[in-house]
Amino acid sequence: MTSTHHTQTRRPLACIVLAAGKGTRMKSELPKVLHKVAGRSMVGHVVAAASALAPDRIVVVVGPGMEDVATEVAPHATVVQESQLGTADAVMAARPLVEGFDGDVLVVYGDTPLVTPATLSRMTEARDGASGDPAVVVLGMRPDDPGAYGRLIQGADGGLEAIVEYLDATEDQRAVTLCNAGLMAFDGRRLFALLDAIGNDNAKGEFYLTDAVAVARAAGHACRVVEASAEEVVGVNSRAELAAVERLMQHRLRAAAMAGGATLADPETVYFSHDTRLGRDVTVGQNVVFGPGVEVGDRVEIRPFCHLEEVRVASGALIGPYARLRPGADIGPDVHIGNFVEVKNARIDQGAKVNHLTYIGDASVGAKANIGAGTITCNYDGFFKSRTEIGAGAFIGSNSALVAPVTIGAGAIVGAGSVVTRNVPADALTVERSKQSVHEGWAAGFRTRRAAEKAARSK
Amino acid sequence: MTSTHHTQTRRPLACIVLAAGKGTRMKSELPKVLHKVAGRSMVGHVVAAASALAPDRIVVVVGPGMEDVATEVAPHATVVQESQLGTADAVMAARPLVEGFDGDVLVVYGDTPLVTPATLSRMTEARDGASGDPAVVVLGMRPDDPGAYGRLIQGADGGLEAIVEYLDATEDQRAVTLCNAGLMAFDGRRLFALLDAIGNDNAKGEFYLTDAVAVARAAGHACRVVEASAEEVVGVNSRAELAAVERLMQHRLRAAAMAGGATLADPETVYFSHDTRLGRDVTVGQNVVFGPGVEVGDRVEIRPFCHLEEVRVASGALIGPYARLRPGADIGPDVHIGNFVEVKNARIDQGAKVNHLTYIGDASVGAKANIGAGTITCNYDGFFKSRTEIGAGAFIGSNSALVAPVTIGAGAIVGAGSVVTRNVPADALTVERSKQSVHEGWAAGFRTRRAAEKAARSK
Amino acid sequence: MTSTHHTQTRRPLACIVLAAGKGTRMKSELPKVLHKVAGRSMVGHVVAAASALAPDRIVVVVGPGMEDVATEVAPHATVVQESQLGTADAVMAARPLVEGFDGDVLVVYGDTPLVTPATLSRMTEARDGASGDPAVVVLGMRPDDPGAYGRLIQGADGGLEAIVEYLDATEDQRAVTLCNAGLMAFDGRRLFALLDAIGNDNAKGEFYLTDAVAVARAAGHACRVVEASAEEVVGVNSRAELAAVERLMQHRLRAAAMAGGATLADPETVYFSHDTRLGRDVTVGQNVVFGPGVEVGDRVEIRPFCHLEEVRVASGALIGPYARLRPGADIGPDVHIGNFVEVKNARIDQGAKVNHLTYIGDASVGAKANIGAGTITCNYDGFFKSRTEIGAGAFIGSNSALVAPVTIGAGAIVGAGSVVTRNVPADALTVERSKQSVHEGWAAGFRTRRAAEKAARSK
Repeated sequence: MTSTHHTQTRRPLACIVLAAGKGTRMKSELPKVLHKVAGRSMVGHVVAAASALAPDRIVVVVGPGMEDVATEVAPHATVVQESQLGTADAVMAARPLVEGFDGDVLVVYGDTPLVTPATLSRMTEARDGASGDPAVVVLGMRPDDPGAYGRLIQGADGGLEAIVEYLDATEDQRAVTLCNAGLMAFDGRRLFALLDAIGNDNAKGEFYLTDAVAVARAAGHACRVVEASAEEVVGVNSRAELAAVERLMQHRLRAAAMAGGATLADPETVYFSHDTRLGRDVTVGQNVVFGPGVEVGDRVEIRPFCHLEEVRVASGALIGPYARLRPGADIGPDVHIGNFVEVKNARIDQGAKVNHLTYIGDASVGAKANIGAGTITCNYDGFFKSRTEIGAGAFIGSNSALVAPVTIGAGAIVGAGSVVTRNVPADALTVERSKQSVHEGWAAGFRTRRAAEKAARSK
Repeated sequence: MTSTHHTQTRRPLACIVLAAGKGTRMKSELPKVLHKVAGRSMVGHVVAAASALAPDRIVVVVGPGMEDVATEVAPHATVVQESQLGTADAVMAARPLVEGFDGDVLVVYGDTPLVTPATLSRMTEARDGASGDPAVVVLGMRPDDPGAYGRLIQGADGGLEAIVEYLDATEDQRAVTLCNAGLMAFDGRRLFALLDAIGNDNAKGEFYLTDAVAVARAAGHACRVVEASAEEVVGVNSRAELAAVERLMQHRLRAAAMAGGATLADPETVYFSHDTRLGRDVTVGQNVVFGPGVEVGDRVEIRPFCHLEEVRVASGALIGPYARLRPGADIGPDVHIGNFVEVKNARIDQGAKVNHLTYIGDASVGAKANIGAGTITCNYDGFFKSRTEIGAGAFIGSNSALVAPVTIGAGAIVGAGSVVTRNVPADALTVERSKQSVHEGWAAGFRTRRAAEKAARSK
Repeated sequence: MTSTHHTQTRRPLACIVLAAGKGTRMKSELPKVLHKVAGRSMVGHVVAAASALAPDRIVVVVGPGMEDVATEVAPHATVVQESQLGTADAVMAARPLVEGFDGDVLVVYGDTPLVTPATLSRMTEARDGASGDPAVVVLGMRPDDPGAYGRLIQGADGGLEAIVEYLDATEDQRAVTLCNAGLMAFDGRRLFALLDAIGNDNAKGEFYLTDAVAVARAAGHACRVVEASAEEVVGVNSRAELAAVERLMQHRLRAAAMAGGATLADPETVYFSHDTRLGRDVTVGQNVVFGPGVEVGDRVEIRPFCHLEEVRVASGALIGPYARLRPGADIGPDVHIGNFVEVKNARIDQGAKVNHLTYIGDASVGAKANIGAGTITCNYDGFFKSRTEIGAGAFIGSNSALVAPVTIGAGAIVGAGSVVTRNVPADALTVERSKQSVHEGWAAGFRTRRAAEKAARSK
């Protein structure tokens, strides 16, 4: 999903990510920007988009106590905005790390995870001399309903003259459809001089970054606008908006998957992670969830109701329906993983079959091995995890329990229902079973007794 | 989802629910109003909305032979409309129970399950003296496509002058966008006098409740309109309309869940029951179905593909994916219920883990117990259900069968693959297993024989 | 879904299906027309729609190397278009099989699977004398966005005067909303004379079937237009368009199912095959996938998360949630199939229950038999499949493995956890189990040792 960008000789670039908002309307203990979209935190998406421009530094502005955000964006620097006094105040918090920066300074928001590197590139490009060396570049958008957004007022040359808040706007200004999307690019050498001139003489007593345009214009500096789609700068302030952004992101990822040659039986029901990789002629059934870290080879068929996370699936494999592949599953070429099967931290080699009601954990399964229905690898004794090694061509009878650590040799057969606690040599048969006793007529007598008892109880 | 309402001193209130329609277009043996929306019958929703106003009585009008509807709405009274002669005839069926009622009489429909208490309240409030003591209050709506709906014609003072059927309407009247939604509120003392004056001189020879407005106006009584959203009074006459109403109801329930602080990975794929209760910071994955009677605590994570019905899930629990929690499952704090696990009528105490391919039914599982993959509680002998008690900290080896009634003591260990028929003391180990035999080379010989046989057969 | 049609005395009919397109934008190894919609290839849908008119012959034009398409449409004839020189060239490839055909010749496209027999019938009907015996009938549509489609220019009598390509069209012509949908019907006796006159003097140097109209008009032949909904002639050139067509087809199938008396909890999440048959009062939960060949009786309840393919389900059965019914499952009346259960190639007789975590394959289960949780039929030894026969009223204890070939007699009981390798007589009890040993205090000691070991390792 990441766009390519030009890394030709360009001005130095710093990026400030504003991520201090508490997100009260989320009603969550988690800082707002750590809520996830397509398996990655919102601030993670924004940092990734900024990183695609290879900036010289990224500084993330967080609120007090948001150590989790600092961890999430490491190794990038974080600074703390001690009091919530507006967006200009937030940028001020980054002053120690950005002051006097001789290049472009991009200011982006940690809660707009759909922003693309291409748009950020266009903002920095608009800063260059050919554009008249503007002090400020503002990102604009044309939402379906401009509503109460601030309007971007342009001069005859297309330059940005003013950002007019809706409440202060005239009728003519309100008719302008170009709105302020919030993201801005600055001349680093002039940024903090502009901010120093911003006041807080407004209803909330806050310092608004938006006011940098008025300050710049008053000082005779040029300002410019770059447009993006309104969808790209949707912000998130509630769970409902989070769901809406997730939907937009999934739409992007689904379109990219189909354009790349995957068939999605119903695209609306396939959930990708930001980093899902699919080969060619992959078929994905309805209701499939990809967690982070999934890589799928060519001609793989993933049937409905599968759940994959941190796994590799090689070419030609057949997965599901109802397969759950957990982290560390490494599924070889042409392997079959069937219904109600869980695989975790296990390598399954070429052509092996694990088709029904099975748990394979902390294990390796050799090529063309056949794992019977109901097989369980007993990988945990309450204290330690141990490994099960199953050789190539082995045949594990149904309902067997393999008590790890244990090795089943290549070509060995495990009789159905066995509990295997000792290693099995290659090409051997192992069985753990008692004699099957038969008690003729017993079931008939049992039914007579039980039926009488039931009749007695129900009186 | 139920709105609050004012129970301040007010006039007495009776509510008549019309539920006699056969719903032929449903093509169903089930009476139409018993079809369910969000886990509750349509008439159940309507009765619940009416009940929120704490009326003095509710009378449900049913058709002949609809005893099931009577059972559904009990203890509220039902009366039978013997012949289907129109809506006024249906209200007439309630006459013995409502005649001379000195208060408001609301007439609502059993097939409009989205109607809210707030709207019903506004209808009764419109009946009061400040509104000129109208004899009839009609609920209006403005559908996207007014189509063939009856139009509500208002006077200069906003009073209702007439309901004009589409076929009888002039062009000017058809241009009116305010349409008749069907629900009405009456002055109880005048209701049946109005109905007595309604005739059936129309194409179908039916008595239409709608005509009460013309009768009232002819008698010089005032009538009024109260508006509601068209969505709220959508009626159901076919399976497709049932599905549409279900979707609208789910939309309400999903929005309420998110506003309350739950994250829904894809809201469109989470199905709530009318009574689902979610704590704060609950995360619900894609494709989760809540049947009736589910209560979920704070910080619970419900992964994709789960199905819950009549269960409690305490704070911090981790559920699924692919977990099925059936009635009587009582999941304690921080419990893990994993994939392909079914729990029925069982208490699982704090921190216990039931992670894979397991059936726990009619059981209790103590705190921090670990239930291995493939464990089955054998709770049924063909005649009786019996209980399995598993103590705190017990460890049940994989693929074990616990034959109830049986008790596994606290801290006990059950060896993998055991069938446990006798009680196990606390801190003991129990094993049911034979000696594992190994037959070297047997598998190789077997393969040779079978391959030869297969080759012979395929000739 | 197939419409009925009139087979009254009519002219002979031949149908040419153009299916030679490579579909490069699909990025697939599979020929484009073999991609599936609702469980049937696109060309299969088109051939089925044509077949509903009972034509005298159907000829499918394929590209070189598309043997798979020939197999798919057999026994209908295929001809190979050796070079891709346009749609007229494609029809020319069919000349040896259609030349001089004394009747109507329909030309349809293998990548428009939504076309209905009703529309094709209307095209052939427009060919008759009452319509002035037109040489060419063109299917028209009015898409929401006419965009760059060719415009159909009609004369005063409604006859078709010309098809004007968008690039060649005047402003007035571009304002025409009636567009060329591509499908055409010809007078078979004049078809190839028209095609012979088509040139390739255009940008791509291709022969366009569309030009037949200009040729016919120049020769003084009448042409006509028949309109269809734009949705019906949506073509597929990419995976995204394939998904869009799948969605439209599912919409049709869902609407038909509901009109027939099925309740779909959320229609958008139920996926039908083109041939799914549902009885009356069937209830289908959310997220149910029907593969091809499914027939469901009356009053069946299919709960959420089920997957069915080539199975019959008799009246009153209860299926799922999370049930997977594979080819050859034959589910009797009032049978219960529960969660995490897989049934393949097996007959389950009336009233039997298979409720939890079970695999039944290559088997028969008698009436009212009860199959315990975790039961596995071991039907495969690595070389051969064998059958398991379970008699009426038998009770299979949980976690049993039935090693086929094996027979469990009627009324027999299998003890929990047994591996059954020998036949069990009717009314007998069979058990395969060892003595349960108990080692008091062992678990406490084990925990002490393991905890010490764990502490040592973590140092």
